Amino acid sequence: MGANLFSFELHHVDRGCAARRASFTTPHGVVDLPTFMPVGTQGTIKGLTASQVRATGSQMVLGNTYHLALRPGEDVVAELGGLHRFMGWDGPILTDSGGFQLFSLADSNKVTEQSAIFRSHINGRKFELSPERSIEIQEALGSDVAMVLDHVIALPASNTNVRDACDRTIRWAKRCLGARTRHDQAQFAIVQGGLNAELRVECAKQLAELSDFDGYAIGGLSVGEGEADMLRTIEATCPALPREKPRYLMGVGTPKDLVEAIRRGVDMFDCIIPSHNGRNALAYTDAGRLRLRNSKHQRDDRPLEENCPCPACQHSRGYIRHLFQANEMLGPILLTAHNITYYQRLVSQARAAIENDVYLDFYDEKIAGWKGENTT
Amino acid sequence: MGANLFSFELHHVDRGCAARRASFTTPHGVVDLPTFMPVGTQGTIKGLTASQVRATGSQMVLGNTYHLALRPGEDVVAELGGLHRFMGWDGPILTDSGGFQLFSLADSNKVTEQSAIFRSHINGRKFELSPERSIEIQEALGSDVAMVLDHVIALPASNTNVRDACDRTIRWAKRCLGARTRHDQAQFAIVQGGLNAELRVECAKQLAELSDFDGYAIGGLSVGEGEADMLRTIEATCPALPREKPRYLMGVGTPKDLVEAIRRGVDMFDCIIPSHNGRNALAYTDAGRLRLRNSKHQRDDRPLEENCPCPACQHSRGYIRHLFQANEMLGPILLTAHNITYYQRLVSQARAAIENDVYLDFYDEKIAGWKGENTT
Repeated sequence: MGANLFSFELHHVDRGCAARRASFTTPHGVVDLPTFMPVGTQGTIKGLTASQVRATGSQMVLGNTYHLALRPGEDVVAELGGLHRFMGWDGPILTDSGGFQLFSLADSNKVTEQSAIFRSHINGRKFELSPERSIEIQEALGSDVAMVLDHVIALPASNTNVRDACDRTIRWAKRCLGARTRHDQAQFAIVQGGLNAELRVECAKQLAELSDFDGYAIGGLSVGEGEADMLRTIEATCPALPREKPRYLMGVGTPKDLVEAIRRGVDMFDCIIPSHNGRNALAYTDAGRLRLRNSKHQRDDRPLEENCPCPACQHSRGYIRHLFQANEMLGPILLTAHNITYYQRLVSQARAAIENDVYLDFYDEKIAGWKGENTT
Repeated sequence: MGANLFSFELHHVDRGCAARRASFTTPHGVVDLPTFMPVGTQGTIKGLTASQVRATGSQMVLGNTYHLALRPGEDVVAELGGLHRFMGWDGPILTDSGGFQLFSLADSNKVTEQSAIFRSHINGRKFELSPERSIEIQEALGSDVAMVLDHVIALPASNTNVRDACDRTIRWAKRCLGARTRHDQAQFAIVQGGLNAELRVECAKQLAELSDFDGYAIGGLSVGEGEADMLRTIEATCPALPREKPRYLMGVGTPKDLVEAIRRGVDMFDCIIPSHNGRNALAYTDAGRLRLRNSKHQRDDRPLEENCPCPACQHSRGYIRHLFQANEMLGPILLTAHNITYYQRLVSQARAAIENDVYLDFYDEKIAGWKGENTT
């Protein structure tokens, strides 16, 4: 399905670890892997224009099915030319399926085999999300990559609950395949299974047997478990995923999470961390994290980071601190641009390191740097 | 003083009215007049990066002495390289004197002949602003143009109060001249006199006799009087101002106010209207004003305005409405960019019309257009 429009090319695996240098071709362009996708929940990367997003080095962005279906409605997006035109983003777009909201809005939804019933967080109205409906919405939005609807649960959870959610995810993936009508949209399956490595591997295998999905995601992590459990689960799951397809770790994470997961063979990431933390005055740098509200920055003439091409780094730390102290919108805007630019530089450097078989040196250098002078 | 760094050149006066095409040279570049200066109260045009401000066509921006002195403090701005470097704006900057806050913060200040005593709107602390202190702050900020401290009062006011404030403004202008130490900073005098045309003319003449100021402003308007009174006052005042110096109407106004005042001989404007109203979902166009929260825009695929080069007009009206409905920062950002771009196009078109002696045709066309289809 859509084999001519989507393709994955594995260029190189690092000599010292499982890190992969690859590329993923979509109808809206080629994505260099590993990649980081900034999150545009409501059809916008909060605070940035499309050209500012492009200037961060981002190649692919994420949109949220649940949020866009509620507001403005996928029919409105479709009528206005689809999500690419709506957002003014001509690069590849991936849409999530709404599965994550089964976890994040757990208090206001009920999951049955047929579907999940939500109470809208906007107006309390009933909203039903089945696998078929999720694909219908994503096709109306017109993203390049649709995610199958998965059943995400909070961790820790009982083995029974983890297995139930995992089995349902596989059945739902099958229904998503059946619901597909657009062949200019890829479908990625999602591996569930909590922290149970055996279950993860089993889920990955069943999904791969089900059909030749265009990609495979690891879902249901970063939902309350610790870092060690998350990394152990990624490490167990990756080898069970088809080698010749992109591997996407959903909703993860910090810069450290990215370099850890890339080391274990992950190709794609999305996360609100760089934008969310940027809005809250936290900046990522190679020397650790800067909290820009701190008074020590008041008269600091240095940029957040030397040689960073982002618009924030045209200014002094003192100026950015002032913007946050004065509650100026430009503070969140500049740190969002900086942090996403930082993430893109990180994955770009990771790509170069893999090509040169020095990913583990790169990894050590980053981990050491993040313990540096800026760490507070 | 500074004659080599600042110069005004009057290129042409329209054949049909008093509209002037001129240019004003500063140490940070030449400004084409008539011009509109967007307002950067706290060292930022709210929501826009410096390069986005530049892209609106803006040549000169305004900063606020009172606000910057309170936060971060003019000493901090000076230590971080002055206001140009602080903001990342390499074009000309004009700073107001704090006089407008004598009006806008009237409840928390007390004016004597020596100075105005404020209660800080941030922390309630005492802040004293004398003519000397205003110039000292503005010199520390390092703007290209400093305004003298004037005494702005609410209108309507009694003749006695208007005359008192006017006389004090003249005495304070003299003290500002005496306080000047930087010769890379111009000083503009400010004409007061309420709605009393005779008093305005007298004030203008006394200021011109006092010294050869680098420019002359009309202050104390748009503070509660009606449009007719404002225009009558401008019309009476302009002919009394030195012909070979820039004329700046402070804090005004709507697009209509601009074309009315240009017609009467004004060269420079500043106003929060385009940015403030943009943040509140109001967009200016040649066919009137659009209220983007209105449901009629939901499925409207048209841009705000055809052929507008701003980032908002890369999108549909439906998208911008969605951003405001969803409380996304990008809504205010895009409409701020659009409105300032609109204002810059308006003054640019005005300049071309004056050069071609067709300003009154331009004026008629704009006034007629603003009553058009978008008007709600």
